[in-house]
Amino acid sequence: MVRAFRLAEIAERLGGEIAGNPEVSVYQVATLENAGPGHISFLSKSRYRRLLATTRAGAIILSSADRGATSIPRILCEDPYLYFANVSRMFNPEQQARPGIHPSAVVDADATVSPGAQLDAGCVVGAGAHIGDGVIIGAGSTIGERTHIGRNTRLHARVTVYQDCEIGQRCLLHSGAIIGADGFGLARDGESWLKIPQIGRVLIGNDVEIGANTTVDRGAIDDTVIEDGVKLDNQIQIGHNVRIGAHTAMAGCVGVAGSATIGRSCTVGGGAVILGHLSIADHVNVSAGTLVTKSISAPGTYTGAFPADDHKSWLKNAAHLRGLDAFARRLSALEKKERTK
Amino acid sequence: MVRAFRLAEIAERLGGEIAGNPEVSVYQVATLENAGPGHISFLSKSRYRRLLATTRAGAIILSSADRGATSIPRILCEDPYLYFANVSRMFNPEQQARPGIHPSAVVDADATVSPGAQLDAGCVVGAGAHIGDGVIIGAGSTIGERTHIGRNTRLHARVTVYQDCEIGQRCLLHSGAIIGADGFGLARDGESWLKIPQIGRVLIGNDVEIGANTTVDRGAIDDTVIEDGVKLDNQIQIGHNVRIGAHTAMAGCVGVAGSATIGRSCTVGGGAVILGHLSIADHVNVSAGTLVTKSISAPGTYTGAFPADDHKSWLKNAAHLRGLDAFARRLSALEKKERTK
Amino acid sequence: MVRAFRLAEIAERLGGEIAGNPEVSVYQVATLENAGPGHISFLSKSRYRRLLATTRAGAIILSSADRGATSIPRILCEDPYLYFANVSRMFNPEQQARPGIHPSAVVDADATVSPGAQLDAGCVVGAGAHIGDGVIIGAGSTIGERTHIGRNTRLHARVTVYQDCEIGQRCLLHSGAIIGADGFGLARDGESWLKIPQIGRVLIGNDVEIGANTTVDRGAIDDTVIEDGVKLDNQIQIGHNVRIGAHTAMAGCVGVAGSATIGRSCTVGGGAVILGHLSIADHVNVSAGTLVTKSISAPGTYTGAFPADDHKSWLKNAAHLRGLDAFARRLSALEKKERTK
Repeated sequence: MVRAFRLAEIAERLGGEIAGNPEVSVYQVATLENAGPGHISFLSKSRYRRLLATTRAGAIILSSADRGATSIPRILCEDPYLYFANVSRMFNPEQQARPGIHPSAVVDADATVSPGAQLDAGCVVGAGAHIGDGVIIGAGSTIGERTHIGRNTRLHARVTVYQDCEIGQRCLLHSGAIIGADGFGLARDGESWLKIPQIGRVLIGNDVEIGANTTVDRGAIDDTVIEDGVKLDNQIQIGHNVRIGAHTAMAGCVGVAGSATIGRSCTVGGGAVILGHLSIADHVNVSAGTLVTKSISAPGTYTGAFPADDHKSWLKNAAHLRGLDAFARRLSALEKKERTK
Repeated sequence: MVRAFRLAEIAERLGGEIAGNPEVSVYQVATLENAGPGHISFLSKSRYRRLLATTRAGAIILSSADRGATSIPRILCEDPYLYFANVSRMFNPEQQARPGIHPSAVVDADATVSPGAQLDAGCVVGAGAHIGDGVIIGAGSTIGERTHIGRNTRLHARVTVYQDCEIGQRCLLHSGAIIGADGFGLARDGESWLKIPQIGRVLIGNDVEIGANTTVDRGAIDDTVIEDGVKLDNQIQIGHNVRIGAHTAMAGCVGVAGSATIGRSCTVGGGAVILGHLSIADHVNVSAGTLVTKSISAPGTYTGAFPADDHKSWLKNAAHLRGLDAFARRLSALEKKERTK
Repeated sequence: MVRAFRLAEIAERLGGEIAGNPEVSVYQVATLENAGPGHISFLSKSRYRRLLATTRAGAIILSSADRGATSIPRILCEDPYLYFANVSRMFNPEQQARPGIHPSAVVDADATVSPGAQLDAGCVVGAGAHIGDGVIIGAGSTIGERTHIGRNTRLHARVTVYQDCEIGQRCLLHSGAIIGADGFGLARDGESWLKIPQIGRVLIGNDVEIGANTTVDRGAIDDTVIEDGVKLDNQIQIGHNVRIGAHTAMAGCVGVAGSATIGRSCTVGGGAVILGHLSIADHVNVSAGTLVTKSISAPGTYTGAFPADDHKSWLKNAAHLRGLDAFARRLSALEKKERTK
């Protein structure tokens, strides 16, 4: 099943300039450290050049600037990391649907399943749902009533999509992802909380990836919207009525509270939290561990984490945080005295 | 299936004063922005009054103080948000059990399932379990041995409840919730860790809501207890032997470590972490992103997050955190000199 | 099914010195507060000695130093908590596999399942998978193609292991755990992100425990590695190509970003985040809520959290964080003036 490619063949498909023997043949990607003669590796940062001296890779992808850094057959290009990604996609194509419905799947008589879709063991598809051509629904996944899954989208095992949601084409949802659970909508009623029915939907565009155990809540009244090309890592929580702009990427464990609007092409670092009803502009980068409590209107990078230190030093320094306001006043008093001398 | 209600009918059920035509008929709630003639909307904060000028809503719920803000038929009441919640509950009643056991469900011969319960495809119910009247067990959910599920409680698809747990009446558990997994109980044994059997249970009261992918661990020896009316959002982790007081609400991604005791009617903001063995008084609000390392004995709001800033400013300022103690000493030295002049 | 043990019998198996009647018989562990005559309890910290006065426990485990603190029959030992753990393991042995494959399980014809393994309802085992002797695969769990599960490992209900992973012996995986989902590997391609196939595996050693809803991503090219004896609590995210050294324990909600290398016998507190490509030495303790942004080369405890305070005080003090650099300059200016007098 493994297929080897000659460098000439790769460059013909993906571009780039070959240096050294174009007939060298490789069948898989590998890191410089672990590559063997059948592997093609890559150098994306010049500071790893020392690894070129010892690698056993059969071929290497590097930037034109590093042309002379090795005599191993190589492909020179502008962006070696992107080129490597494309080569890896040639060698490791995505799994295609093997059309058919496993006998243990439970598909409602009123659901529409494309003959080109693959439904794995134990998955459940509700009434009025629509499963497009080339879709893969992994084992044990559940598709709610009237939910639509677009062409060539793949759900791994045990994904849950509630009723009335829409997922676009070529999306990838990992196990444990939950799309369309109720948002956290409660009204105070004396000492108790009264649940507000969550009647909005989740609308997910095309080419979206959603990581393992990530949750995207349905809207309270209007919809929660994830635009095209958004990439969400694992264990992320997206609250009701959030809108995430196209091509924004979020790392693991991020939390976005209800009704936040996040722009296009943003990045959010691991463990960051964005509070509700905020608006974040396009091209904003939020650093890992940062709590965003106010809207951000200008592109740029925003950070707010407490730097780690050895525990004793931290104890000593952090104790003064509660005295910062007093510091400020003491400092001003000294300055005033100094000025009046 | 949709049923419309006249304003007069709504006010008869829920109270409030009608201004304008009481015969106007609406069938669903909507936001001011997206409402049409068949919708009833609400204004809970006067700062959104400008939206009244352009809304196409058929009727509006607002406070008596905003009576004159629109001529659209309206219901005046004390708490428009709570009133809206009640209206939405009239229009969108909770799903009732459709009694029956799906043929693909696996129910142990020694389990007791009320004839009024609904067990969906592929769910699994262990020996000695008890499923009450009106309960819905979603597709692929697993109920452990000897676990009791109280009347009219609903588990969405793929909820897991381990053995020997008790869940009260009218609870709502979302997909991916896991109740009763082992707490993190380990004893040091040289370089290794020895697992301590987790033999306590999880006891959940009535009217509790538990969000998607939230986990509540069973007790180590005694039980983990979630009292009546508690509301937990998604992706929350509740450690073993925690007790959460009635009507406390926690937003997404909160972590509560083992043996913490949290009072009644508290709120905990998204991403906050409460350390183990602490005691939190009733009516405490913990802000989002706050790490609570000490018990809190007085009601009030507690916060501890580092404010986000643009990255360069943060870098410049945060660098001084490691020098706060030195700052303090330098400041004191200057003050001393000043005093001795 | 419950079996009682005499103190003499316990001490014979586990060591320790008996004080009082060695014929007293107990059948379960309990806390000092809730113990009855058939229970054995323990005192691990002298500060809880007051509880000895009122406990109704039939027997107590305590340190030799506390020998005289009660007249209840007792076992004296060096480490009462570890001793208690061992006693509890005698009373509450782990569940053994009841060999057999539930009729609703879906096992590929090309999978190898040991006759001594237990496969529960609705679990799915892919082609080429290997399930060892004494393994328990819980209801609804999914084992990917070519994945190996070592002897006596237990997966609770609804665990997902993707293809080509290896899990060692005597491991315990809790519900919702997901092993081997794709890492977050993306290359920028203009405004879009290009997915990089994640072709590495997850290799998990022996005696590893993985908590509910914890996710461990597969490697991008090389493998993600969890060494022997590692203990991961719930809701943890481990990125691709992370390596966690033997006997390291992490509390709930921790995030470890891609390619971080964490040493042996470390502990990581709840909600901490460790950024990617860092290296953490052996025997490092990271405190709860700490963001680790730089490698740590020396053993010790590291902390970086903002201390919680009442909200008003926090507001007042936190406002000065943006002025710390200005503080520093003002302080230096005053010192300079002072020196030049």
